[in-house]
Amino acid sequence: MPRHLIFSYLSLIIAAAAMREGNFRMREGAPFKIALFADLHFGEDAWTEWGPIQDFNSMGVMSIVLDDEQPDFVVYLGDVITANNIMIANASLYWDQALSPTRARGIPWSTIFGNHDDAPFEWPLDWFSQAGIPQLSCARGSDCSFRGTTRLELMRNEIERNSLSFSTDGPRNLWPSVSNYVLKLSSTSNARDPVALMYFLDSGGGSYPEIISNAQVKWFQEKSREINPHSRVPEIIFWHIPSKAYEKVAIGVQCVGSIFWESVAAQEAEMGMMKALEKRDSVKAVFVGHNHGLDWCCPHRKMWLCFARHTGYGGYGNWARGARVLEIKQQPFSLRSWIRMEDGSTHSEVILSS
Amino acid sequence: MPRHLIFSYLSLIIAAAAMREGNFRMREGAPFKIALFADLHFGEDAWTEWGPIQDFNSMGVMSIVLDDEQPDFVVYLGDVITANNIMIANASLYWDQALSPTRARGIPWSTIFGNHDDAPFEWPLDWFSQAGIPQLSCARGSDCSFRGTTRLELMRNEIERNSLSFSTDGPRNLWPSVSNYVLKLSSTSNARDPVALMYFLDSGGGSYPEIISNAQVKWFQEKSREINPHSRVPEIIFWHIPSKAYEKVAIGVQCVGSIFWESVAAQEAEMGMMKALEKRDSVKAVFVGHNHGLDWCCPHRKMWLCFARHTGYGGYGNWARGARVLEIKQQPFSLRSWIRMEDGSTHSEVILSS
Repeated sequence: MPRHLIFSYLSLIIAAAAMREGNFRMREGAPFKIALFADLHFGEDAWTEWGPIQDFNSMGVMSIVLDDEQPDFVVYLGDVITANNIMIANASLYWDQALSPTRARGIPWSTIFGNHDDAPFEWPLDWFSQAGIPQLSCARGSDCSFRGTTRLELMRNEIERNSLSFSTDGPRNLWPSVSNYVLKLSSTSNARDPVALMYFLDSGGGSYPEIISNAQVKWFQEKSREINPHSRVPEIIFWHIPSKAYEKVAIGVQCVGSIFWESVAAQEAEMGMMKALEKRDSVKAVFVGHNHGLDWCCPHRKMWLCFARHTGYGGYGNWARGARVLEIKQQPFSLRSWIRMEDGSTHSEVILSS
Repeated sequence: MPRHLIFSYLSLIIAAAAMREGNFRMREGAPFKIALFADLHFGEDAWTEWGPIQDFNSMGVMSIVLDDEQPDFVVYLGDVITANNIMIANASLYWDQALSPTRARGIPWSTIFGNHDDAPFEWPLDWFSQAGIPQLSCARGSDCSFRGTTRLELMRNEIERNSLSFSTDGPRNLWPSVSNYVLKLSSTSNARDPVALMYFLDSGGGSYPEIISNAQVKWFQEKSREINPHSRVPEIIFWHIPSKAYEKVAIGVQCVGSIFWESVAAQEAEMGMMKALEKRDSVKAVFVGHNHGLDWCCPHRKMWLCFARHTGYGGYGNWARGARVLEIKQQPFSLRSWIRMEDGSTHSEVILSS
């Protein structure tokens, strides 16, 4: 093998290893920008004409946000697909389609699960009437049970096929909850000098209850104690379904956002995650999706509880589509956020680090 | 191969072929007796001590009924297992356990599906609390998704392993509805002289809606026209979830039964099955399970709508367990039914052929 090829190969291995450890570096003289793509719902009504058109439109929203904002990183904030509408064996095809605008631009990303991503197929009642089963008829398919693609399968397919993916399938002892991991953002000059820690958690739903388990709470406590023992590094949290604390802050006068028309659809129970977060001054904000008709950030104790913005044309609601953007600056640390809309406008800017 | 072995082998092939065609012969000088085992719910709370004890008790009920009544045939009337409680990859293990008392006595049987048989596993909320996931921990298992065993898998496993099974997986064009087939009871003297036709239908639930589809209605109409064109042969129908017609007859003064404490939990919609049955004078009775607290037979037009009796210790309700028994006589044809209880008593005798 020629020397320059060996060198390239080694560089790739080193880069891949650094990525697998979940480390990013700030770019010289630039803030770190993250776009949140929430509730894309690819594959919705996959058997109609309407469904694929929605996915095409969602690709458009993502493309506009990526081109306008040029983010350094993308977080897919759950409900990437509407698995309960997908009647093919491998839902990863839709999952992969949702990732493609980010991948095409060479931007790294990570994903977390929502309540629709591994849901089993729901047979529409109408298919049992005289109308019958459309298109992908059960009689012609090799398997007509459509039990869905599991979280593990979706995640492993994503990771294996994408060098830009920073997702991991989390510690085994947290399964069936899968998307639990930490990513570290380091300063430009020193990889060991962390600027921020990003915790990704699986808030359940689909194949199991909508919940963050006690085991996940323990994992967060141990992990944060290990990598940020003195709470010196700012911490940012991502999961899909709002916790019950969101219900309490929703009517606060300090909330910043543009749509407030829904009730918070919270997790089924609270197993201690919010208490664990509240104890750490380093936790600056939590970001969730799930409610398509809410896009606010409200203060809660010393942190902020934020919704993303409905990015996908799939899923309920006709509120205009967009994406929440986060901007991280170092020395001094700041976390700023706004919402970028499909029409190119921005709104709801808020400082989350004060 | 010795001659007597060749003969035995050929006899077996001929017998198996006759069975696969779904033909029975009345025994000389004896009525044909069928026991209905409804809602056994094997595998319920499989991770507790309580669960396996219920299954043991259900084996006891079946054994008593089989020994007391000595039926010629058994119908497993759906909800054989509680799949939403089964956290192993192959639920056929529980299905097979439920069949074993009948198999052990050399009695042939057939099965139909209920709404619990192919349901996906439902993770108890409590498992996400500090208590954690018991026994078969997700961390130790090879797959923690528990998407359930499909109707097709359950049925094919049953058929492949059991020469006494008269079940079939039905026409492909009726899938995801699987347990749709006909069995013919012939006179002692002539296999071509039918005494009764037994139609088995899948009333859905679990992985798809609780419904008998329009496609199944058409299948019944075509099948009955083909094998019983002049409605001369009495017809008996079996499925799991009561149709909406059951709701209307439930308060009739002519009803015969011992427990009437529940509302009928009917199918989600009516796609024409009841109308198809009502048009045929040959249809004598429909038998369903599903409601554990109902065991009546009520007249409806020219036929009877009957509940079985809750046979299993699994499933809701603490009404005493038992099994509905059917007795078919030829020349003249008669269909008589009663309920045999676990304590050996019988009650609710009714003539369904008048």
